[in-house]
Amino acid sequence: MTRYFEDFAVGEVIECGSRTVSAEEIKSFAEQFDPQPFHLDEEAAKKGMFGSIVGSGWHSVCLCMRLTVDAVFNDTSNMGSPGVEKIRFIRPLSPGDTVSARIEVLESVPSRSKPDRGRLTFRFELNNQKNETIMDFEGMTIFGRRPAANAG
Amino acid sequence: MTRYFEDFAVGEVIECGSRTVSAEEIKSFAEQFDPQPFHLDEEAAKKGMFGSIVGSGWHSVCLCMRLTVDAVFNDTSNMGSPGVEKIRFIRPLSPGDTVSARIEVLESVPSRSKPDRGRLTFRFELNNQKNETIMDFEGMTIFGRRPAANAG
Repeated sequence: MTRYFEDFAVGEVIECGSRTVSAEEIKSFAEQFDPQPFHLDEEAAKKGMFGSIVGSGWHSVCLCMRLTVDAVFNDTSNMGSPGVEKIRFIRPLSPGDTVSARIEVLESVPSRSKPDRGRLTFRFELNNQKNETIMDFEGMTIFGRRPAANAG
Repeated sequence: MTRYFEDFAVGEVIECGSRTVSAEEIKSFAEQFDPQPFHLDEEAAKKGMFGSIVGSGWHSVCLCMRLTVDAVFNDTSNMGSPGVEKIRFIRPLSPGDTVSARIEVLESVPSRSKPDRGRLTFRFELNNQKNETIMDFEGMTIFGRRPAANAG
C-alpha cells in the first residue's frame, strides 16, 4: 500500500532489512566512484589504519539508500529530496560486514504554498552486525499528500 | 607531487575535470543503489516531473567524488572524512549531461591534540554543460601534515 506524507508520524522507526557486503563489492564501488588505495589495494591497506581495505563512506551511504528504498521509499509518494545534512562517517565498512538500515521520522512539515505535498525529514542509520552505527545522516524528502486529504 | 594539509589554502579553487553521463550509467547506478522508477523506468518517467529518467542524487554525489579523487585526493595525505554537511540536490542529472566538478577550500584547522594532522573543509560542486550547479555539499577531510612541518 502506497504511503503518503500523512502516513509517516514523527518518532516512527522503520527497520529496513540487512545485507552482507563482500570485499569484491567494496572494491567494485571504489573502482567506480572512490578509487583511493585504502578502498582498493589489499597490500597497501595492510600497512594502513585498519589493517585491511575499508569501504568508501559513500558506499555506506549508498547501501543505506538501497535498503531503505527497497523497504520503504519505493512504495511511497516520494517526489525527491532537496538535501541532506549531518552525514557522519563513524566506523569503517569492512569486508564481510552484515549491515542493516533503519530510519526514524524526525520532522513532518506540510507545504504552505503547495497543498498537495509536504516535507519529511528522516534520520538514516546504517549499523553493522555488532549493532554499531557505521554511518548516519538526516535526509529531507518531499512527499505527495494523500489525494483525499488534498481534495478535502 | 603529494599534497599535504599545508598545501591547501583557504579560498583556493581547483577544477577537477568532466565526463559525460549516459542513460545506461544512470540506470546502472539506480539498479544498484536507488531503484526508484524515476531513475530507471523510461515509460514511467515520461509521465513524471522531468519527462525522462533523471539520475539519483547519490549518483551526482558519487560522480563528483570520482572526479575529485582522480584530480586531487588520490595524491594527497588524505586520512578519511569525519562527515559531510549541506548536500543540496539543486537540478536533475539527465542522460547525456557533461558534468564537471570543482572544489574550493573553505576552512583549514590544524589539530590541537594530534600535531601530525589537520582538518580541511571543502565545498564540492557538480555542474552541468550549461554551467548550472546540479549538486553541492561541504565535506570535511583529515589530512596528514607535511613530515618536515611535523618534525619541526
